[in-house]
Amino acid sequence: MAEQPDPQAVVRLAMQIPVLKRAPRMGWLIRGVAPGEVESVAAHTAGVGLVALLLAELVETPIDRGRLLAICLLHDLAEAAIGDLPQPAQRYFDPGVKIEAEARALRDMLAGLPFAAQWLVLWQEFEDAVTDEGRLARDADRLDLLLQAAAYHAAGRRGLDDFWESTMHYVWHFAASAALYDQLQEQHSHNDFMRNQ
Amino acid sequence: MAEQPDPQAVVRLAMQIPVLKRAPRMGWLIRGVAPGEVESVAAHTAGVGLVALLLAELVETPIDRGRLLAICLLHDLAEAAIGDLPQPAQRYFDPGVKIEAEARALRDMLAGLPFAAQWLVLWQEFEDAVTDEGRLARDADRLDLLLQAAAYHAAGRRGLDDFWESTMHYVWHFAASAALYDQLQEQHSHNDFMRNQ
Amino acid sequence: MAEQPDPQAVVRLAMQIPVLKRAPRMGWLIRGVAPGEVESVAAHTAGVGLVALLLAELVETPIDRGRLLAICLLHDLAEAAIGDLPQPAQRYFDPGVKIEAEARALRDMLAGLPFAAQWLVLWQEFEDAVTDEGRLARDADRLDLLLQAAAYHAAGRRGLDDFWESTMHYVWHFAASAALYDQLQEQHSHNDFMRNQ
Amino acid sequence: MAEQPDPQAVVRLAMQIPVLKRAPRMGWLIRGVAPGEVESVAAHTAGVGLVALLLAELVETPIDRGRLLAICLLHDLAEAAIGDLPQPAQRYFDPGVKIEAEARALRDMLAGLPFAAQWLVLWQEFEDAVTDEGRLARDADRLDLLLQAAAYHAAGRRGLDDFWESTMHYVWHFAASAALYDQLQEQHSHNDFMRNQ
Amino acid sequence: MAEQPDPQAVVRLAMQIPVLKRAPRMGWLIRGVAPGEVESVAAHTAGVGLVALLLAELVETPIDRGRLLAICLLHDLAEAAIGDLPQPAQRYFDPGVKIEAEARALRDMLAGLPFAAQWLVLWQEFEDAVTDEGRLARDADRLDLLLQAAAYHAAGRRGLDDFWESTMHYVWHFAASAALYDQLQEQHSHNDFMRNQ
Amino acid sequence: MAEQPDPQAVVRLAMQIPVLKRAPRMGWLIRGVAPGEVESVAAHTAGVGLVALLLAELVETPIDRGRLLAICLLHDLAEAAIGDLPQPAQRYFDPGVKIEAEARALRDMLAGLPFAAQWLVLWQEFEDAVTDEGRLARDADRLDLLLQAAAYHAAGRRGLDDFWESTMHYVWHFAASAALYDQLQEQHSHNDFMRNQ
Repeated sequence: MAEQPDPQAVVRLAMQIPVLKRAPRMGWLIRGVAPGEVESVAAHTAGVGLVALLLAELVETPIDRGRLLAICLLHDLAEAAIGDLPQPAQRYFDPGVKIEAEARALRDMLAGLPFAAQWLVLWQEFEDAVTDEGRLARDADRLDLLLQAAAYHAAGRRGLDDFWESTMHYVWHFAASAALYDQLQEQHSHNDFMRNQ
Repeated sequence: MAEQPDPQAVVRLAMQIPVLKRAPRMGWLIRGVAPGEVESVAAHTAGVGLVALLLAELVETPIDRGRLLAICLLHDLAEAAIGDLPQPAQRYFDPGVKIEAEARALRDMLAGLPFAAQWLVLWQEFEDAVTDEGRLARDADRLDLLLQAAAYHAAGRRGLDDFWESTMHYVWHFAASAALYDQLQEQHSHNDFMRNQ
Repeated sequence: MAEQPDPQAVVRLAMQIPVLKRAPRMGWLIRGVAPGEVESVAAHTAGVGLVALLLAELVETPIDRGRLLAICLLHDLAEAAIGDLPQPAQRYFDPGVKIEAEARALRDMLAGLPFAAQWLVLWQEFEDAVTDEGRLARDADRLDLLLQAAAYHAAGRRGLDDFWESTMHYVWHFAASAALYDQLQEQHSHNDFMRNQ
Repeated sequence: MAEQPDPQAVVRLAMQIPVLKRAPRMGWLIRGVAPGEVESVAAHTAGVGLVALLLAELVETPIDRGRLLAICLLHDLAEAAIGDLPQPAQRYFDPGVKIEAEARALRDMLAGLPFAAQWLVLWQEFEDAVTDEGRLARDADRLDLLLQAAAYHAAGRRGLDDFWESTMHYVWHFAASAALYDQLQEQHSHNDFMRNQ
Repeated sequence: MAEQPDPQAVVRLAMQIPVLKRAPRMGWLIRGVAPGEVESVAAHTAGVGLVALLLAELVETPIDRGRLLAICLLHDLAEAAIGDLPQPAQRYFDPGVKIEAEARALRDMLAGLPFAAQWLVLWQEFEDAVTDEGRLARDADRLDLLLQAAAYHAAGRRGLDDFWESTMHYVWHFAASAALYDQLQEQHSHNDFMRNQ
Repeated sequence: MAEQPDPQAVVRLAMQIPVLKRAPRMGWLIRGVAPGEVESVAAHTAGVGLVALLLAELVETPIDRGRLLAICLLHDLAEAAIGDLPQPAQRYFDPGVKIEAEARALRDMLAGLPFAAQWLVLWQEFEDAVTDEGRLARDADRLDLLLQAAAYHAAGRRGLDDFWESTMHYVWHFAASAALYDQLQEQHSHNDFMRNQ
């Protein structure tokens, strides 16, 4: 904080935010959710943050809330430059290619900013999922995905079942996450989602 | 954390998130930005969080990052129930009516949850703008608005000048906010926004 | 007509019309109908007018058609200034707050126009539902809502059942309205709506 | 009113209304206004009705308001079946082909309804523009078009100038229409439209 | 190729392409598919071309691939000027009126271009369906329609059954077309379309 | 043609077409063109095909039209699986990574089809740009991009200038392409595009 960073580097980073707001989450788009109906990457980011904030109140492990929410807000920031490469596309790239591209993009975005290294660590923490905060953020990421899948289904969208199926193999890091997932699945399978929303 | 909250209350709160993702920011809509082009309340929430995270790195005042980001994530949560009452509409309601409605809606959403009181305090902190975290969140809220106005303008939208004009009366709480605003305004007025984005 | 009104007041009133055309009907939006798919307040206004015109041919009570259609065209005009406050939001405002805000907005829109008082009376007539024209307009308002709910359902939208359920408590003012409702419900429940449209 | 019409014919007519709400006004669409941004035929219908209601207060000629508003509401009803054939397309059809198609469509829609003949007369009155009500409806139709053109321009849309140019050859039937047009044009050319809206 | 055509005539023809990209396929729109979700005429054109390219590999009849693909690319070009008159609308026009309008529009678009006559012949070939290439293009046109209907259904759209029903009366010109149709129908009726896509 | 390919492989390939119709061209999206306004990859494919068909009439080199149009129709087929990786994103991937991913995706799509190798050759021809047909397809690809940029600009979109700037370094393979580009640029810079369209 002693040395003030280059003001142009600051504004250039801030200007990535509107890009995140118009970047569509491709998983929905390729499954036929209409363009104007697809959530943006930014909207998903907020969802992950809110779910994380909620889970942090419920888990018994002590959580650094500042670290947790920073991880959530940063975990998809690179998509302002790379876009959201949908899951089915990733199998056509060598392992690690996508993460490496995102790391490069982040380093570009943060160039000249004194906190660049710290932010890269926070972003990495989501990828590695070894700290409690990184793990909770990952659970939140998955839960926000399912909340949105349930909402689209309740509003008439179909063809989104594989998100639920792939979650059967997902191992929740916290009991509170698993409990919320159980409740969500029940609302979804009983067609109560829209009604109780 | 000892007493576990009602799981139904937890899922009902989480189910507000998809509503925030489809609630449009009305200020853009009434000025003619196309429906599928208008950012959602959730996307704006993420924008405020990211700007706040950035400003927190730049201000000299010590900031509780966890508190700051929680305030940002919660500041528009009531709009899942109330919607986003656009500025020009508010003059037709008595002062305090909107805030009171939002407080009621939040109490409803959080009913049965042990952390309800704490979240209401965080939400109130944004409204009151007396703590440093509350003030920084307000600056971030305003800056995200202008970032979006600049982005719409750069993409061809017109009729959004009053957001810049009304900001002339806004008193920034932190030098870092004012500095970012200056840079942003310069990008906007030199038509460099899209190019440097 | 002897005294000509202020031309600026006339054009300012006319300029509210495009706002009505872009104001979305919030009830659909919060239930997940996609932004670009949601009818505008103006489109609903036309629907109410057309249903009223149709009902006026069918009821046995003598109806002043000019008064009826003026009521229909004006009944949502205030939403150009206030927006469409969705039903679930209204419970968070004190009774009468919304109507008072709309009345204030209308008085603003009509300021300086010699027919202001008459238009306010027509608008009030819809709210009070004591004249035959006001009652017929209300029936038309409800029927247009259900026509649209049926159309969205036929096109695949789900989660709109509560409009049908809440109508079970609605008391139709005219036999012709009730008869049209019965037919509509039959088309809807037999999944014949799109096919016969 | 003695003989009650076939209930199925009534509901079938009502079911045209949602079609009008999703039929886009093609003139905007072919000039590049985005699909979700284009007003529906129904929204335009409401606009024409509201402008007519306003003009009726201003003209000195005695006007049958019920007849006037019925003409406005019905003038584009056939587009539920035919769609909105844009102006540039019409030159590729022989004169009268479009009107004849619309008349056939209307006769189909109204088949079995006792008021069919009267409604066809009202629709014809708009086409012929010989009665005062028919003429006022035509002026309102043109004014609503320009209101919308001005609104799109104020929101950043371009390429809509020919609507203003073609209006230079339009002869207004009423002084009040011409006066409103003058005001509107001034707002438009001074870029004051959005600001004063 | 000896004589170079008027450059202005060339660019004017090319400028029709963006119009085809924004012209919506009206059959989906009038059945309630949301505006931003409806495929453009251009997107359909590509679909027909791709299906034709695929069928050309499968049929035993020798096919002139250049001629086939040119027919596919040109078969809806006139819709840049006329729009896409939906099937239900066509019964209100005399037989031949639509084709004649399209021919006139094409002659206008191609005026001054030395290859005008050849392109008109290619366009006519689709209409007449007497050559093998014309017939294969027609099969491709129908198959692309059903592929899109299946995709909309898989994504939750309803009310599109009549496309399948009307196809029961369609006589496929080639065994390969009929075989693809059988497979497609099976995917559709077993709800496997999205999953296997 | 002697051995009939696996019918399931055929339908699976055809089912990629609706995916191409909903895959947005990301270059427009990240520059702020609204989601429902962005052309699909399929619409672009048709544009490239039509421009190529037109250029083929104008160039003096003998062109195999069947080969040319097949190249155009196939050149973006892999984007059904990979999506459209926008230009600015590509610098974060090692050279060749994108092409290799597309080749893998294509081999997957064409697995079990006897013409797989031939189609891969056609797709490669676009990438290599060494044959006349491959080069003409590349010119058509670039021209379709500029036609669309001009159309968006004429309809009010801004921030698309870099497509024109980057074209200054593009070397046209054919005089006819360069001539069309000159005309197009003139229409664009004189703001005549919409008017003459």
